[in-house]
Amino acid sequence: MAGGISVHAVDVASGRVARGLFVRIERLDANGARETLAEGRIGANGTLDHPITNGEDVTEGTYELTLHIGDFFAQSPRFLDTVPFRFRVFDAAQHYHLPVKFTPWGFSLYRGA
Amino acid sequence: MAGGISVHAVDVASGRVARGLFVRIERLDANGARETLAEGRIGANGTLDHPITNGEDVTEGTYELTLHIGDFFAQSPRFLDTVPFRFRVFDAAQHYHLPVKFTPWGFSLYRGA
Amino acid sequence: MAGGISVHAVDVASGRVARGLFVRIERLDANGARETLAEGRIGANGTLDHPITNGEDVTEGTYELTLHIGDFFAQSPRFLDTVPFRFRVFDAAQHYHLPVKFTPWGFSLYRGA
Amino acid sequence: MAGGISVHAVDVASGRVARGLFVRIERLDANGARETLAEGRIGANGTLDHPITNGEDVTEGTYELTLHIGDFFAQSPRFLDTVPFRFRVFDAAQHYHLPVKFTPWGFSLYRGA
Repeated sequence: MAGGISVHAVDVASGRVARGLFVRIERLDANGARETLAEGRIGANGTLDHPITNGEDVTEGTYELTLHIGDFFAQSPRFLDTVPFRFRVFDAAQHYHLPVKFTPWGFSLYRGA
Repeated sequence: MAGGISVHAVDVASGRVARGLFVRIERLDANGARETLAEGRIGANGTLDHPITNGEDVTEGTYELTLHIGDFFAQSPRFLDTVPFRFRVFDAAQHYHLPVKFTPWGFSLYRGA
Repeated sequence: MAGGISVHAVDVASGRVARGLFVRIERLDANGARETLAEGRIGANGTLDHPITNGEDVTEGTYELTLHIGDFFAQSPRFLDTVPFRFRVFDAAQHYHLPVKFTPWGFSLYRGA
Repeated sequence: MAGGISVHAVDVASGRVARGLFVRIERLDANGARETLAEGRIGANGTLDHPITNGEDVTEGTYELTLHIGDFFAQSPRFLDTVPFRFRVFDAAQHYHLPVKFTPWGFSLYRGA
């Protein structure tokens, strides 16, 4: 698979893909400034449908994927609300697949490929 | 996705798909007898290429996926050797995707979809 | 910590320790025969209170921890019912802490120390 | 256990507690300003030894635990460098135990109790 960043999200409390989860992908510069490259809701197949998947605008640097887990579950209390996952694109020719498993109480994310 | 059982395996110690990992899928009957439905090595795309992915021979019942993690790492000591993951196909019309993340010291597996 | 096998179980769907979860620890011999060394229910502190924690009867060999996850959730459908985690005690002088996080749809277990 | 925030960190690539991992706990206010409440290195028992464990200065609000995973492994390439885990203390009378399992390629963190 060519360069790019892809997301796959599963709610492992209910065993379903996280359709409707709002996610954002930003690039962080060295001063902490942020540029949004992609945002939207996870679709019925568990992924974010966006050109960033094919590498659009992806250069080497530091990125954050933010997951709006609090709004997704919309329950109280909220232990998790907006959850960042920070990672580095250390080689823009590689693909960065980010499969996240989560519940209201935590998450797991290891690079998928 | 239609019925069937699929596997995706990632060695999260090295951040790579587990190409070459030997896996087996068996059905267990109520007496504990086992029938092998699929076996082989994980390919370069992280999956087991086998007709069981499309539902061949998959009926309701109890199954075990066995992962030969000890042979994969071939290092000493072996905390994990052959590792079973037991699950139930409770509705043969559904698909059971099994994404496993592992190191020599443990693993994570939540139904993927 | 001296030799022995300890278990800590958390239901990460609800964010609580898995009080009441039934667990069993068995030793497997080379022929597949099983000997039960410990069994009981997880207590209010998330652990199994048993002398095996201090190494009683723990020798080198292959072990299975079985978790009765299906009965714990007592919901339908059951993707997980009785779930084995197989591991090796490769040095009886070491301690094997087994912290498991689970939902009805999967689990994660990496040696804890 | 009374209120407070505790951390337990295990490098699951090597199967060891993450002795020497630098961690920081900050409170974030509504404007994104940060106040450091605790920082230091994980000890030989896998935890951060600090009064925050007993609830010192812990009030309701949003917090970030930052893990210096890149420096811990000190290898190249760095997929993970400084990794935040953001969570909410929604009731200061409760304890928030944060057991993290990580490799150079990802991590898992679910509230522990």
